[in-house]
Amino acid sequence: MLPTNTAERLCKIYGILQMIKKDSGYVSSKELASMMGTTDFTIRKDISALNLVSFGRRGYHIGELSSVLGKALQLSRPYRSCIVGLGRLGSALLDYESFRGDGFDIVAGFDSNINKIERIRTQIAVYPVSELDQVVKNKSIEVGIIAVPHNSAQEVATTLVKSGVKGILNFSPAQIKVPSEVVLYNMDFTSALRFVVSQI
Amino acid sequence: MLPTNTAERLCKIYGILQMIKKDSGYVSSKELASMMGTTDFTIRKDISALNLVSFGRRGYHIGELSSVLGKALQLSRPYRSCIVGLGRLGSALLDYESFRGDGFDIVAGFDSNINKIERIRTQIAVYPVSELDQVVKNKSIEVGIIAVPHNSAQEVATTLVKSGVKGILNFSPAQIKVPSEVVLYNMDFTSALRFVVSQI
Repeated sequence: MLPTNTAERLCKIYGILQMIKKDSGYVSSKELASMMGTTDFTIRKDISALNLVSFGRRGYHIGELSSVLGKALQLSRPYRSCIVGLGRLGSALLDYESFRGDGFDIVAGFDSNINKIERIRTQIAVYPVSELDQVVKNKSIEVGIIAVPHNSAQEVATTLVKSGVKGILNFSPAQIKVPSEVVLYNMDFTSALRFVVSQI
Repeated sequence: MLPTNTAERLCKIYGILQMIKKDSGYVSSKELASMMGTTDFTIRKDISALNLVSFGRRGYHIGELSSVLGKALQLSRPYRSCIVGLGRLGSALLDYESFRGDGFDIVAGFDSNINKIERIRTQIAVYPVSELDQVVKNKSIEVGIIAVPHNSAQEVATTLVKSGVKGILNFSPAQIKVPSEVVLYNMDFTSALRFVVSQI
């Protein structure tokens, strides 16, 4: 297992490579560093942790680095994911441009409001949240994305974990708890905005 | 200026304190560590960087820690912010539950689609993006939140910076560039989802 900070940066590098893929054959650690707002030393250290990538005069070969990163980060196959909570944020995520065709299969959406489920316009199958447990098991969903209000986030997380989900991306401001074997990542908008302000 | 990692964690601690405020008078570094998924040593080190907080047998006094953090992170006054791009994500952010009354004044929204601006239901003043420069100056907006598609993100960022914004929270998957004196924080959903998968 890669250290958390290294894995976080390698995921960003992988994302950058996907975007610049068509532009050129090679990328230098300096270019990557400038795009990520870090130092080229950090970039080289992170990539050297993979122990598999050659670094020539022209930098890293984009195709090679991308494929090695994909394997190291377990991104070589799509992960079956679902979104719980189809308010504005949840339905924005259902159609988020860079999820599509990017190693993630969003295979289901859930909401507690039956009217919303009937009205929502999306290509993805949507269900009442009462069927969460059953659908996650039937569809072998591995990742749950939580976009419900903070007061129901823990309940949703608990159901997801019980149903067999291995990772959770939490968009609610709630501090949810999961067993240590389940991966949890909090996308906390308010903390992010506070961080911007604290650095001004 | 606090180190980046410390500031990020202190912002999260501040958010937790806002939520548990009513629950009890004191909080221990162990409790904070468990809520944040880190070690109590890290929490104590981060808080000791503030050099101002007493730590008794019962832990930190929530009110005192909250007020010291608010000052250190410059959160003692609301920052005037705007959201550019009012698609599903942008309009979700306009009404995001934990932005309201939480040290951030979202004072304007912008979109390139005039019809959308006329139809959108929100309490916040909305404008065509052609008026971005003028409105940011007139309203003394300090923070810009970018929620446009990736192909227009850089143009929006450049206009925001020219108009005097000091910090940018970028929700688009684009790698945008800003001058070094402007604070930039990327909320990259795809990287976050990749990170979850890489740790499974």
